[in-house]
Amino acid sequence: MGEFDLIERFFKQQPSPSSVCSSFEATHSIALGIGDDCALLRPALGMALAVSSDMLVEGRHFFADVDPAALGHKALAVNLSDLAAMGAEPLAFTLALALPPERAGDSAWLTAFACGLHALAAAHGCPLVGGDTVAGPLNICITVLGQVPADQALRRDGAQAGDDLWVSGALGHARLALMALRGELTLPADQLAAARQRLERPVPRLALGRALRGIASSCIDLSDGLAGDLGHLLKASRVGARIDIERVNPISARSPDSTGENLLEPRGALALALSGGDDYELAFTAPPTARANVAAAAGASVTAVTRIGQITAASGLKLRDAEGREVNSPFTSFDHFFTTAKNSP
Amino acid sequence: MGEFDLIERFFKQQPSPSSVCSSFEATHSIALGIGDDCALLRPALGMALAVSSDMLVEGRHFFADVDPAALGHKALAVNLSDLAAMGAEPLAFTLALALPPERAGDSAWLTAFACGLHALAAAHGCPLVGGDTVAGPLNICITVLGQVPADQALRRDGAQAGDDLWVSGALGHARLALMALRGELTLPADQLAAARQRLERPVPRLALGRALRGIASSCIDLSDGLAGDLGHLLKASRVGARIDIERVNPISARSPDSTGENLLEPRGALALALSGGDDYELAFTAPPTARANVAAAAGASVTAVTRIGQITAASGLKLRDAEGREVNSPFTSFDHFFTTAKNSP
Repeated sequence: MGEFDLIERFFKQQPSPSSVCSSFEATHSIALGIGDDCALLRPALGMALAVSSDMLVEGRHFFADVDPAALGHKALAVNLSDLAAMGAEPLAFTLALALPPERAGDSAWLTAFACGLHALAAAHGCPLVGGDTVAGPLNICITVLGQVPADQALRRDGAQAGDDLWVSGALGHARLALMALRGELTLPADQLAAARQRLERPVPRLALGRALRGIASSCIDLSDGLAGDLGHLLKASRVGARIDIERVNPISARSPDSTGENLLEPRGALALALSGGDDYELAFTAPPTARANVAAAAGASVTAVTRIGQITAASGLKLRDAEGREVNSPFTSFDHFFTTAKNSP
Repeated sequence: MGEFDLIERFFKQQPSPSSVCSSFEATHSIALGIGDDCALLRPALGMALAVSSDMLVEGRHFFADVDPAALGHKALAVNLSDLAAMGAEPLAFTLALALPPERAGDSAWLTAFACGLHALAAAHGCPLVGGDTVAGPLNICITVLGQVPADQALRRDGAQAGDDLWVSGALGHARLALMALRGELTLPADQLAAARQRLERPVPRLALGRALRGIASSCIDLSDGLAGDLGHLLKASRVGARIDIERVNPISARSPDSTGENLLEPRGALALALSGGDDYELAFTAPPTARANVAAAAGASVTAVTRIGQITAASGLKLRDAEGREVNSPFTSFDHFFTTAKNSP
């Protein structure tokens, strides 16, 4: 199958029932979609255009045997998460796809991948408008385009000493699933399925990001783990932060045997939450006077948020326990975890 | 070297003499550049945003031993060529780069690649505003963003029967260089150097594209060869075309011996021009009444253009010789060439 056939068959969305999966109406912001040298977009008047590119590589960002529909979902979700972190609303995306011959000839795989991609795109009114298909080791590069009033964009560099530090949702479940898939621990089926959903089908927090316009002083999405990504925000804002660890939603890994015992040591559970990665939640800051507004934004977007600490004038990230004692943190790296010995492989 | 160090060191442009190569002033259309979850752009009032993504894979689009500065140039040039084909002016680009360990640790290679990239970007006022760096087989994905008045964009679907068919520059030299680099023929050093420049450092025809706004009825850039790319334009416009082959600039491959004889048979020379690929010239159409305007646009952009045929109501691409006879064309494929036997390897 040639490049153009492949785009036409799997990726060019048509409002007909013959397309490979559900499609959606063209939006008025797309002046010209797939099929020319460029797509043409019309951001609304007064809106800045937000743009972000992410690249996913087989073996690095996903397993070769991943469900292709989940892969299609995740490839777009991680980009939409960048829009969410700016408070931007999606407009459109481009897809550049390098496919090895065995994938390019696998209609079932491509159909499932395209459906996963388009279903999420349709849910957010964000059509595919262009891209490229080439032969090569499997590589997925998506560039997402959105719009946001320039003066209301949620940047990384606006955090102020004294601001509250917030996170959305719960942290660490994606990494817990990865550990289970790697055989590093064994979870009961229901917990594995839930954690795997978090790993493979992250939910971009677009509604929350948009609701936080004019409220949050800074925001970042969590792809590499809270400790690392918050570090970027702190650096950009030239501040530090303190996290009250008892406020971070505790994560547990239940033993699949009848005891239901937590397989994670307390430090392991904390490490998962702080450094797990692949959560695609938002970390953001807002002044304490804005707590009611933050709660209203969370309510309006039906997204849980938790206040986990405070921005400090002194640089660096500090952890504090329930008794107010500073906790030593080795959690800057992605790769350090602590599980109880009895469940280790 | 981590991802963020690598971006900071090689790709984030700074207006200081310590940066790895020449930089340029931030443009007013960039509200926020590298370093946040998204970049923010402000297209000028009334402008549509043009967007295009291209992916280059080692072994497929370039040789592993290619000059990295030329690779940086070409990776951006092929994207800028898409903007040229829409009549759009560049605003900014994102770069997603998958690097194997030996490249990620090769400062000289990365510096040269970044310089080639940034030099072309600076020449067109098109700064890098974001992207991604990951570990993986070498893969370069650039998304370029530009702007054009939506009603003046040079689309593929506007050609009308009776329109003149034009091409810019000369065709076939990039493919001639590829043949020489593959050892399929031997060229004198000066001709090889010139052809190789066309292959490795294509010139995006941005000024011509922009000058053709309001003049050309359709336009496409030539990446896969005139016959193939023109086919896309004809299909989109639901028309056909006739090419007068004696008007296509003849390409010759000089024998490196004292005879200076042309190594290409006439059909081989024509095949190179029609199906060579990698030319990144523009093919465009305009009504015969616009010939003076086309000439003026070519003059204003200092770009040679040649009228090579005409759009026809009947579909398909036909070739006609100087005597008006139809020539049988096997030149739809990229891979068919004809050289004289004596110079074959």
